[in-house]
Amino acid sequence: MLADLAGIGRDPTTGGYRRHVWNDADMLLREWFVGEAAARGMDVVEDGNGNQLAWWGSPGPDALLTGSHLDSVPDGGAYDGPLGVVSSFAAIDRLRADGFTPSRPVVVGSFADEEGARFGIACAGSQLVTGALAADRALAQKDRDGLTMAEVMAARGRDPRAVGRADWLGDIGTFVELHVEQGRSLVHSGAPVGVATAIWPHGRWRLDFCGEANHAGATLMQDRHDPMQAYAATVLASRRLATEASARATFGRLEVEPGGTNAIPSRVRAWLDARASDDESLEHLVEQVVAEARAASDLDGTSVEVTAESVSPAVDFDVPLRDRLAELLDAPVLPTGAGHDAGVLSAHVPTAMLFVRNPTGVSHSPVEHADDGDCEAGVVALAAVMRELAS
Amino acid sequence: MLADLAGIGRDPTTGGYRRHVWNDADMLLREWFVGEAAARGMDVVEDGNGNQLAWWGSPGPDALLTGSHLDSVPDGGAYDGPLGVVSSFAAIDRLRADGFTPSRPVVVGSFADEEGARFGIACAGSQLVTGALAADRALAQKDRDGLTMAEVMAARGRDPRAVGRADWLGDIGTFVELHVEQGRSLVHSGAPVGVATAIWPHGRWRLDFCGEANHAGATLMQDRHDPMQAYAATVLASRRLATEASARATFGRLEVEPGGTNAIPSRVRAWLDARASDDESLEHLVEQVVAEARAASDLDGTSVEVTAESVSPAVDFDVPLRDRLAELLDAPVLPTGAGHDAGVLSAHVPTAMLFVRNPTGVSHSPVEHADDGDCEAGVVALAAVMRELAS
Repeated sequence: MLADLAGIGRDPTTGGYRRHVWNDADMLLREWFVGEAAARGMDVVEDGNGNQLAWWGSPGPDALLTGSHLDSVPDGGAYDGPLGVVSSFAAIDRLRADGFTPSRPVVVGSFADEEGARFGIACAGSQLVTGALAADRALAQKDRDGLTMAEVMAARGRDPRAVGRADWLGDIGTFVELHVEQGRSLVHSGAPVGVATAIWPHGRWRLDFCGEANHAGATLMQDRHDPMQAYAATVLASRRLATEASARATFGRLEVEPGGTNAIPSRVRAWLDARASDDESLEHLVEQVVAEARAASDLDGTSVEVTAESVSPAVDFDVPLRDRLAELLDAPVLPTGAGHDAGVLSAHVPTAMLFVRNPTGVSHSPVEHADDGDCEAGVVALAAVMRELAS
Repeated sequence: MLADLAGIGRDPTTGGYRRHVWNDADMLLREWFVGEAAARGMDVVEDGNGNQLAWWGSPGPDALLTGSHLDSVPDGGAYDGPLGVVSSFAAIDRLRADGFTPSRPVVVGSFADEEGARFGIACAGSQLVTGALAADRALAQKDRDGLTMAEVMAARGRDPRAVGRADWLGDIGTFVELHVEQGRSLVHSGAPVGVATAIWPHGRWRLDFCGEANHAGATLMQDRHDPMQAYAATVLASRRLATEASARATFGRLEVEPGGTNAIPSRVRAWLDARASDDESLEHLVEQVVAEARAASDLDGTSVEVTAESVSPAVDFDVPLRDRLAELLDAPVLPTGAGHDAGVLSAHVPTAMLFVRNPTGVSHSPVEHADDGDCEAGVVALAAVMRELAS
């Protein structure tokens, strides 16, 4: 199944995937999902947010949800998301081959817009279902072409008025998401599959470094109010602070105005992605980074404005479920610094995550990888979990 | 005359000008130029490159050319370029009011595309006339909409086959360009008008910082190969090195790949604009900046590739002409870090530049300014120069 997906949405120059919600690749992936479900006699429902659900058995209460997402970050890899969807179908195939019949409905989900690459809000599909994200706010988000989510959905024949909380969530009794590990904990553990303990709190802050545009040739260095300098100082400080705190800080997106080679910038707009092991540590880290940004700006006669665009608190997964699965699979437990739909749903239903070993630890990149044997181990583990929870 | 131009091509949100070659604003400015010339009984010739020439007297050999350009950088100011054109017409008005008749043809020029904001080549109009820029190369340049210069010119009724060297250059005996100062040397000198000694050598280098994309949340700080870090270190080093050398270094344009908030970049492509007082100093400055970039990249397991996109050697203006004008005007002499059409023509005809005081030193920005009294002093000076050189 992963091989069937390999050609969809891949950039020929980078080899990375550009599967962003409602783009052409995303539409093909939706067709693929419907086809796989149909081949297994599973009915597919797409909710008003674009989340797809394939039901094994009639939709009904106390269902066991598995699955993940099919979209990617810009230049993403082949496993982040698709591995969980593909493994869910494969696990069902194994159980059926063994003659297993579930005692509760089992449903494979593909969440819309998990990466938030197009409209800037991660886990938008799951957040809309749970009400964590208001429909109005989501619909007004714009992509880089200036199109709102409402306009984009309408162009794909979806009704923007249907966006928001969805009834199906009330039918879910348990959610188990399988995902490629984004890190090397399982390499160190020597285990192909692990069980998640928690998702670190994380967030995105926009830092607008503002200065004064001027001529790059004629303006003395000491007469400048160049916001690029404070930005650069902040980038270096963020690494030092995050390293000291065993946390994470990343500047991966940037806009420079006016953006001319021969013009000192008037504004550098940068996004800080920060994560830490607990809410207090994260807050402290961001305070320190902002303090460094302000200090550097003050020295240059520039300024910095900080906007918290999204902050997700720590998620501790359901402890009895986690312990039950870790014992069942004889698998190590580990936290993750990455956000997931499972983190969103865990506030509403008992939720667990399985991670599959990633030999390089690299993700959000074309070189993201998992060995075939480990993917197979993931399917076996997920089938065991389904059997355990739906017998 | 500047007030007549104030509304042309101004962006209502930024207050800056967007007068780019062959855009609607540029066409209006061309009409304005023709009208001002006609009001003075001066014949206008537009050459195949879009350079406009208004002749006082019949076109002929050993003419005295004055003028500058009417186009702007993105979000540019009102004085850079237009002040030289307007002052030329105003100086002629003064001379005529005094009953002066020139002994040689005097011609007011408005050079096309001095800023290169649309097609990326500065001083394109003057470089085409002199042959410093090949017609084929210019015509193939594309703007941000993907239109070639040839297509854009044809759409404005201009014949792309006429682009290139122009005969009128052979008739020019002397060129004097008046320009607002881009810096504060005249503020320090206490003089409203100065005479240029030289244009600093300058160039543009592209630095590709290459690393490894990865997940911003799941990747330990010490496991990263994040090229943003070496970029940031290079930005800070470039300021230190340029300041120590009394030179200039600017990073005003940047592209980050993949550009996702939650992805460690795989590549940061940055453009270094560097200038120094002589060719050797510039070369040394760039070598030092590149060495810092390499050292920082090596520490992170990333790399940097450097491409010299354009390098312009130093221009020393004609010394006898410079000294004659400085003595005539009792004006200070000063170098400039900015490129000008006068720098291009100086390789072909004796050329001088006059600068008008800029109280803030700011240019290439909507806040660029010159006081009315200083503009008037510029006109008086330019009229004196015309009288001196055309008596």
